[in-house]
This record gives sequence, structure tokens and C-alpha cells, in this order.
Amino acid sequence: MKQIEEQFLRYVKKMMSYREAIGLMYWDLRTGAPKKGVEQRSEVIGMLSEEVFHMSTSEEMAAFIAKLSPQGVYEQLDEVTQRTLDECKKEYERNKKIPADEYKEYVILCSKAESVWEEAKATADFALFRPYLERIVEFQRRFISYLGYEEHPYNTLLDQYEPGMTVELLDGLFGQLRERIVPLVQVVSSAPDKPDTSFLFAPFPKEKQRAFLLELLVELGYDFGKGRLDETVHPFAIGLNPNDVRITTRYDERDFRTAIFGTIHECGHALYEQHISEALTGTPLASGASMGIHESQSLFFENMIGRHYAFWKRNYPRLQQYAPAQFAGVSLDAFYRAINEAKPSLIRIEADELTYPLHIIIRYEIEKQLFAGELEAADLPDVWNAKYEQYLGIRPHNDSVGVLQDVHWSGGSFGYFPSYALGYMYAAQLKRAMEKELDFAQLLEEGTIAPIREWLTDRIHRFGKTKKPLDLVRDATGEPLKADGLIQYLEEKYQALYRL
Amino acid sequence: MKQIEEQFLRYVKKMMSYREAIGLMYWDLRTGAPKKGVEQRSEVIGMLSEEVFHMSTSEEMAAFIAKLSPQGVYEQLDEVTQRTLDECKKEYERNKKIPADEYKEYVILCSKAESVWEEAKATADFALFRPYLERIVEFQRRFISYLGYEEHPYNTLLDQYEPGMTVELLDGLFGQLRERIVPLVQVVSSAPDKPDTSFLFAPFPKEKQRAFLLELLVELGYDFGKGRLDETVHPFAIGLNPNDVRITTRYDERDFRTAIFGTIHECGHALYEQHISEALTGTPLASGASMGIHESQSLFFENMIGRHYAFWKRNYPRLQQYAPAQFAGVSLDAFYRAINEAKPSLIRIEADELTYPLHIIIRYEIEKQLFAGELEAADLPDVWNAKYEQYLGIRPHNDSVGVLQDVHWSGGSFGYFPSYALGYMYAAQLKRAMEKELDFAQLLEEGTIAPIREWLTDRIHRFGKTKKPLDLVRDATGEPLKADGLIQYLEEKYQALYRL
Repeated sequence: MKQIEEQFLRYVKKMMSYREAIGLMYWDLRTGAPKKGVEQRSEVIGMLSEEVFHMSTSEEMAAFIAKLSPQGVYEQLDEVTQRTLDECKKEYERNKKIPADEYKEYVILCSKAESVWEEAKATADFALFRPYLERIVEFQRRFISYLGYEEHPYNTLLDQYEPGMTVELLDGLFGQLRERIVPLVQVVSSAPDKPDTSFLFAPFPKEKQRAFLLELLVELGYDFGKGRLDETVHPFAIGLNPNDVRITTRYDERDFRTAIFGTIHECGHALYEQHISEALTGTPLASGASMGIHESQSLFFENMIGRHYAFWKRNYPRLQQYAPAQFAGVSLDAFYRAINEAKPSLIRIEADELTYPLHIIIRYEIEKQLFAGELEAADLPDVWNAKYEQYLGIRPHNDSVGVLQDVHWSGGSFGYFPSYALGYMYAAQLKRAMEKELDFAQLLEEGTIAPIREWLTDRIHRFGKTKKPLDLVRDATGEPLKADGLIQYLEEKYQALYRL
Repeated sequence: MKQIEEQFLRYVKKMMSYREAIGLMYWDLRTGAPKKGVEQRSEVIGMLSEEVFHMSTSEEMAAFIAKLSPQGVYEQLDEVTQRTLDECKKEYERNKKIPADEYKEYVILCSKAESVWEEAKATADFALFRPYLERIVEFQRRFISYLGYEEHPYNTLLDQYEPGMTVELLDGLFGQLRERIVPLVQVVSSAPDKPDTSFLFAPFPKEKQRAFLLELLVELGYDFGKGRLDETVHPFAIGLNPNDVRITTRYDERDFRTAIFGTIHECGHALYEQHISEALTGTPLASGASMGIHESQSLFFENMIGRHYAFWKRNYPRLQQYAPAQFAGVSLDAFYRAINEAKPSLIRIEADELTYPLHIIIRYEIEKQLFAGELEAADLPDVWNAKYEQYLGIRPHNDSVGVLQDVHWSGGSFGYFPSYALGYMYAAQLKRAMEKELDFAQLLEEGTIAPIREWLTDRIHRFGKTKKPLDLVRDATGEPLKADGLIQYLEEKYQALYRL
């Protein structure tokens, strides 16, 4: 049996090696691969991806699962093997339950749908995208019927991104959040004392931004022996393995916030992957526990650290040295208020941390109703606009800045959005637990980030994907996931900021 | 049959896709991959390489060869398929003739030998390396007995790097070359009017070198839409596919020649691969015809173009702008003479174009005798030193700058060295043929490189590996390979340079 276990781990390691190669090609394509080589490189990526997919559904994989799963055998496996087997089995069953030809048809549909969506967004023409959206929803509903569900059909979609998450839980968490944040946004919107943000947009040369960033990254604990920083169009972090986790950024010379906060965000993702236990390397467990847990780490760094007063108390004088003309006459307080400006807006990806969760709650409510059969694709623009008016007090003047703004649905990624708001919730709950043990503000002011990062590594990072998100958060913080932490964090911060 | 042909091409394309992924990982490791990730990345490379090797010797490959090779079938295949099949068959047979366990033992030996060689070289201790060298030679002799040979055992080794090349041919070519170059080197060495080279070593900042290089590369026709320039320790060019051919360089701020001539050299390699017919992409034919042909392209650019008077007549004023302090008082003539300084030296990789072929001829004569059984590993230091004295007039004072200087033998790469000198010979013969049709010097002076590059693409580049080197050169120049071209080129250039 030991021999089969070893063969299984070797087989999985090969799949992971292929994924690592694919990861590097992806990184390369987005950071400077020659333009004319893109087509051929995409073919190579496609060929390797097909091989990985083939390996995950092969007869060999079926035989490993059959031999290692039975009671009496499974219990004797090493713990890493057990969890690896669980992951492989989950993927195998999922891939086997959906008929291959239907899935292929669906993939082709999505790839067409994405270009149609692009055009529809550009021309604010929902009618153009509608038939594609209808068919994608139809496919997804059918897939749910193949895969089965408990309690609510949408649970099956949620589980793909946030294992264990349910409509029942989210209704509670998002309901509480909405009830407290909607009125807070209203008072903030009508607060008389608003921050001045005009000085944010002065020219700030790329090289100076980069130099400042490199200093920050080292202070935050990003290990350049296990990573590198490159430029790209849509920034991302990518963990090829725990010893090679790269981050990318984009510089806007008229708005330094793009690079600074974007990079601190990616740094949070990267610190997570740089500190996954090396014992998991070569298995599918060497990655984040879920989309939401990953986002909790990036948001923790971007907002809880990167937008904290104490962090800038230390770093603002440095920033002033890199851009003296821009910040000479601006006080630390004025700077702090400006980078934390909050106001209702139409576009999710441009939203601040206060209003962001409402953008997600709107999408969650719509998706949930769609898969409960209470809404159809045709209804979405009206429902969307009504919810924006109700929760944020502003109404999209067309669908381009409304229901058509996100790429997700054109790729069939239903169930993905909630992870973003869960990331905020996880992060706030982690911060609250951490503050019982560490003097958070004091550490930020001293630039001593190591204890904070180590706390996160100890409770979150090192486990990789061996624990489910809800267990991870409960074990890390000593209580089940609640909305309280985020509500308290946002209320305290924004009441003070807006002097309410 | 058409169906089997298609399956075969798909199978080969998959192998080539894996090779492309390996190529990118190799490039990445050498241009900035995080240090701590190297070990895991090497494992991934190893795993993919093993898969490619496995595919080249699999039963599936055997079946393709068996089905497509028979007379009556082969003739109906597309020409690209025919040549692809030839290549796969050659590799298959080679890999099958050598027993797998012996080959594995040999690979392990070589990897140990390389570290021993490093130490032996560092301490000038041939005795340390000798037992390893003996065993490597023994293995290679045995491999030749498995693979078989015609006329001379060394022919089997030559054929690996330069298909179709033989001892008979090389004895003639290298013999003529030696007879004419040895006396030329002697007169050059004793010429009274030697170039002043002192001004070459002034500080020249990296950024300025790079800016100058980028201008040069564009003028030489390197397509940045199909490539990029990065820094590395040991520069190389790598063709991932014809639309993605990257070059690397190293900057020495106290000797600009390293980057300038090194990059022009790699540019020659890259222009070759950027202009291989796209019809060959996804087959093993989308690469250079041989080591020597590849080297002919890099040397053509580095020496025939990059060390030509007319080239610098155009580009020296530009260079002077990038480093005014260094070159202000240096005339074009003085500069031209300095960058073409020729004098006997002990180290091959530091040799100039006049003495370089003699370094190769020495190695060729030694290797040939070694595999004819006329020499043993133990004899090499004495033979080496005697030949250096005889051909170059200088004798190594220890084996570190003598027989231990090159890495090749520790890796078992016997038969490789002749390709370097063949590269010079091919290049000179191509130049002579080209000059019958183009006003070479005039084009260089105008900076109009396109007709030169197009001539090379038409006669050499586009064919990739579909033709054998000797056929390629004969078809390109209208005559079989001769030593004349190189002899004439060197005599004319160095007699003028040294005012003999």
C-alpha cells in the first residue's frame, strides 16, 4: 500500500509540475513576453493544461482513488496524502459528473460570450449580451443538477470558491453587514467635513514610485529571494511554488495610489503563498485555502496595514522624500484622510473599503435569486439598478456602468463574488483576534511587521489548502465567522475619519 | 494513412510544446528567477525533460515509425513530415541502441565529473580530473561501438553536432587552415606596428551601453516584437519558437566589448531563429541546421559585420556620443585597429578571430586521436602543451590555463569543438558568395542591413533543420565547403590591419 501511496504522490507531483510550468508561462505572457509569440505560447499553455485535465480524470487517477479511499486503507495514509486524495477525488468526481461534450460546448460558449460582453459593455447594450447570459445560466443550472446540491442550488456554486460556504450563512452575515453599512454610507455621504483629495493627482515619476515600493516591500517582509516585482497591465500575484511567488504592478504617474496600494495588496497575497508549509509542495494543497481567505490576506495588508494611520505616521516622511513637491504642504492627517476617502460610486473595482462590500452584496443577492429560479437573465438590469439606488443611493445611467461592468458572468463565474466580501470579513476578524495579543498600531509605527506576519503564518499561511476556510478562521480567531468584526472596524474608522 | 500522419504530427507537437515550456524555464532561471526557487524549478524541468525523453522512445513513437517509414508510405508523406520522421527516427534509434542503465550511469558520472573538473581547474590539478576523464572516454568509446561508425570512430561523435561531417573532410579543411594561419599569426605577433588598446578599458556605465545596444539591435534587424534583451551571467540566445527568440547579455563597465560584441553575436543567433519558416513550428526542424551553422550566423554578425571598418565608420560617432570622455581623442582608425587586435593567447574563449581557429584545431586533433585509440586521457596535458607551443608559439604554465580550461569534456561533449571553427569557415564562405551580389561594405556604411539579413534568410535561416549543413552551404554559395574563404578573409584583413 505504501508503494501505491508513493506512486500516487509522484503522479500528483507531475501534475503540479505541469501547473508550475503553465504558471510561469502565464506570468511571462503578462510581464513582457514578445507580442508576436503570444499565439504560439497560448497553444503550449493549452496543450499542457489539457494534459493536466486529462491526468485528473484518467483511468490511472480512478485506480488511485479506488485503491486508496476504502476504509481501513485511507486511515493509514499520511495526512498530506489524505488531503491530497480528497482534493483529487473532488475534482475527479466533478469532472466526471458533467458530460464531457456538454462541458466542451459550454467552454466554447463562454469564450464567445466574453468577446460579446466586451462589445456589449463598450456600447452599453445589454440586449446584445442577454442571449449569451441566458445560455450560460442555463448551462450552470444544468451543471448544478448533475453535481447535486444541499438546501440551495447556489450552494454548489459557492462551494467551488469557498468550500463549506452556504446561502444560509451568507444571508445572515451579509444581512447584518447591509443593515449597518447602508446607514453608515448615508451619513458619510452627507458629512460636511470631507477630505481634500486634490493633491493625490500630481505627477509622480514611475522610477520614484518603484524605489519607494521596493523599500516598503522589504519592510512588509516580502522575500525577494523568493520573488520579484515586475510591471503588467492588470496586476496580480502568482505563487509558482512557495519559494517563487512573484508580484506585479502598474504605475500611474498621475495617481500613485494605483501602484502603492495595488502592490501592498499583491504583497499580502504573496506573503501568504511564500509561507505555505514546504511539506505541501508538489501537492494541490500548496495554495490558498479559498478565494476568500486569499483575499483576506491581501486586504489585510492593503487596508488594515496600508491604510492605517500608524503605518503612514512612519512612512509618510519617506514618501515625502520621494515626491517632495507633491506632499510638501500636506500634513499627515490630511494625507491619511485623503487616502481613506469613502463615497458611493458605481464601479466595484474603483470602490473604497467602506462601500465595497455593498457592491458584493448586490451581486450576491442577484446570483442567489437567479439560481433559485426567482429571476431570469432578462430581469437583471432593472434589479441591479434598483439595488444600487437602494443600498448606495446612486443609480447607473446605463448598463455599461451597471450590470455589464464585470467580466465574471461572461465566463460563467457565478458564486465567485461573495469571496471578495468574505475576504473583508475574515480580515477584520483576524485583526480583532490579533489585537488581543499584539499592539498592532505600535508595531506599524515602529515598522516591525514580522510579529504580525508571523501571527498570520502561524494561524493561516502555513496550512495552505489543508483546512476549510470556516475552520481556518474559527481556529485562528477562537470564534466562528461573524460580521461583527468588519462592522465594528468600519464604523470606528469612518466615524472618526469623517468626524461624525 | 493521412490520419496516422496527423496523429504523428500532433504527438511531435506535444513534445515540442514541452520543450518550449522547458526553454522558458531555462531562460527564466538565467535572467532573474528568485534564487530560493531554483531547486524546485530544476525538478520541474527534470520532470518535463524526462517526459520528452520518454515520448521520444515510447512504444507510441515506435508504432509511428513502423507505420510511416515503409517504402510506398514514406513517399506519400508531406515533406515536413518526412524530415520530422527522419529526425525522430534518428533520435529513437540512438536512444534505443545505448542500454538505458549504462546511459543513466554515464549521466551520473558526468554530473559528478563536472564538479571535480571545476575543482581540478581551480587548483590546476589534472590528476584529480584524470580518472573521471578516463571513464568518460571509456563510456564514449563504448557508445560508439553500440552506435556503429563509418571510416573513423570519431565520425559518430562529429555527426551529433554537425550531421554529415567526417574526419576525412576535417583533416583537409583544418589542415589547409593550419598551414596558412600559423605563419600569419607568427608575422602578426612580430609586427612592429601594434594597435594601442589602452582606451578600451575606461569606465562605460551600463545604462549607456544598453541604450547604444538597443539602437544597434534595431539597426541589425532584431525584431523586438519577437524577442527581448535581458541580463545574465553567461550570455546566450534562445529560440522558444520563431516568434519568441530572446537574447541575453552581460555588462562589464570596464570593458564595453563584452556587451557590444557579445550581443551582436547573440543577435546573429537570434536572427537565424526568428527567420526559420513558420511552417516548421511545432516540429524538431524549427531549429538551427547544426551547431556550426548556428555559429556561422552569430560569427557573421559579430565579426564580418560587427568588426568591419564600414560598420564602425557609421556607428563610431554614435558610440562616441554615448561615451564621449572615453573616445573623444580616439580616431576611427585607432578604434578599428584596437577592436581587431590579434595575438596568441592561452584561453580559447578570450581569443580573437585570427587565432581562434587554431585553438579549435588543437582540440580537434586531440579528440580524433583519442577516439582512434592513439592517445589516452593521461597523455593529454603534454600533447596539449606541445601543440600550443607549435601552433601559437606559447606554452601553458599550468593545466588550468591549458587542458583543463574548457567544461566540454567533463560533460562528455566530444565532437563539439570542431563546430566552432566550422562556423568561421561557413561564415567566410557565405560572405564571399554574398559579396558577388551585394556591395557589402557600402550597405554597412549606410546602415542598410536588411538585404544582408534577407540574403541569409533566403539561403540559410528559413530552412531550419530541413537540410544538412554541407548541403546548405553548397546550395547557398554554389560550391562545396572550402577553407579558402576563411583563409583569404583572415589574410586580407590582418595583413592590412598590421600593415604587413
